[in-house]
Amino acid sequence: MNKEDYFIKQFKNTHKNIIGDDGAVVGSHVYSMDAFFENVHFKREWMSLKEIARKAMIVNISDAIVMNAIPKYALISIAIPKDFSKDDLDELAKGFKSIAKKFGIKIIGGDTISNIKLDISITIISKTKKPIFRKGLKKDDFLCFTGELGTCKKDLESLLQGKEVSKKSKFIKPKLKPEFFYEISPYVNCALDISDGLFFELERLSETNNLGFEFFDKISKDIGCSGEEYEILFSFSQKNRDVISKIAKKHEVKLNIFAKAVDGTYKGDCKNHHFN
Amino acid sequence: MNKEDYFIKQFKNTHKNIIGDDGAVVGSHVYSMDAFFENVHFKREWMSLKEIARKAMIVNISDAIVMNAIPKYALISIAIPKDFSKDDLDELAKGFKSIAKKFGIKIIGGDTISNIKLDISITIISKTKKPIFRKGLKKDDFLCFTGELGTCKKDLESLLQGKEVSKKSKFIKPKLKPEFFYEISPYVNCALDISDGLFFELERLSETNNLGFEFFDKISKDIGCSGEEYEILFSFSQKNRDVISKIAKKHEVKLNIFAKAVDGTYKGDCKNHHFN
Repeated sequence: MNKEDYFIKQFKNTHKNIIGDDGAVVGSHVYSMDAFFENVHFKREWMSLKEIARKAMIVNISDAIVMNAIPKYALISIAIPKDFSKDDLDELAKGFKSIAKKFGIKIIGGDTISNIKLDISITIISKTKKPIFRKGLKKDDFLCFTGELGTCKKDLESLLQGKEVSKKSKFIKPKLKPEFFYEISPYVNCALDISDGLFFELERLSETNNLGFEFFDKISKDIGCSGEEYEILFSFSQKNRDVISKIAKKHEVKLNIFAKAVDGTYKGDCKNHHFN
Repeated sequence: MNKEDYFIKQFKNTHKNIIGDDGAVVGSHVYSMDAFFENVHFKREWMSLKEIARKAMIVNISDAIVMNAIPKYALISIAIPKDFSKDDLDELAKGFKSIAKKFGIKIIGGDTISNIKLDISITIISKTKKPIFRKGLKKDDFLCFTGELGTCKKDLESLLQGKEVSKKSKFIKPKLKPEFFYEISPYVNCALDISDGLFFELERLSETNNLGFEFFDKISKDIGCSGEEYEILFSFSQKNRDVISKIAKKHEVKLNIFAKAVDGTYKGDCKNHHFN
């Protein structure tokens, strides 16, 4: 067990049902909090300040969406290098505000401090009528992920080699699919976003639900170990395949139905995707 | 205007009424988020990991209390140095959990990442029936702070010189006064906690309320510029002096009624208390 999981586990005994998912559900509220730290999640030379602020917001909002929750408010805690100018601060603020506006989120507070590097933590407060959890996978469910996986791994490798990537790279600008997911939510048994790579997320689903997977085709590591994708991994009863496919078509979302839930356990074999 | 205030101001135009206080009020909820970063708010050699975790929680809970809100849930985002052992993580977890237990707070989520230093951000979700804000000061109000100010400045100076301080130091273990404050809350017009020093907080009150202060006695910089005190600064109508004094006596809280709100503006003259 890695240190992060070990630490999180220290709080699990007392609140089994709310901790461990991307967000914590309390009544009709979902609370999610994510760090987006320099040299952990990004390097400054990879992205503009506006892009950094935007991605920090997006990865947090992603947590809410995959739980079928509508993000309403954000708190932003930001540690700013001492040499930042007012223009730099403006760029950051613009990034936060543009995503907040796009998703109808109000930025209601937070904290700002001086630091040696740019470290952002964001709390998103969301509302849901029917939360979807990591737990909920049923035997014989189909497993599915949205979009294309793999480009984020490639782009990360390029960036680490000092190469440039397309400004449209999903690594720089993750694309969320809220309308699609909210519409299929009545037919979904479990879901999470692909932040640490498909195989890692499948391991989490396997552990949480005590089930394994029967893959329809072999999935390469280039695809399965690609993190920071922010595509959605979800499961559904086979009988709902048609209705989900129809909704996906309407929203122009590509579906990849790649496995079936079976008895057993699943272990991925990616190296930790964190680059530091 | 310092960079922190400048950055916060970028979000103020849109949400005038909820941003800027220690917490943001949405309906009956109060949301507060504070960073507690290594080499910004503390140095590792000053405190044990358990003490660091405890103080990180306490300074956040303080925000809720001075708004007359009862803290209910916490999200903890923690960046952990790579060389931390499981024992280190246990100590941190114990610190978080001991304060959570003391205040009846459930730790419901957060994020854990690997980093070059120990940086903690905490979001506290609280409930209130009648929030108290920084805004609310009335002309002729008495201004009051609780407890003794000054020891935190002295202790911080000692620590910066490499000297030891008492394990009971308020700098290490801030003492909150929730029962006292909840009981006087019906008689309080405005309040905030003294995190950046009395003179800084008075400047905030002056700006927010467009009033100045007539001091009854001169307050030295050793007292007025002492940050990290987490005593409560509040104002009340003179007619409520007796009832507040009575409640303070019951809770063994020392009151310092030191000024009256008058027309004008107030400017403090402390240097920024941050030590880096």
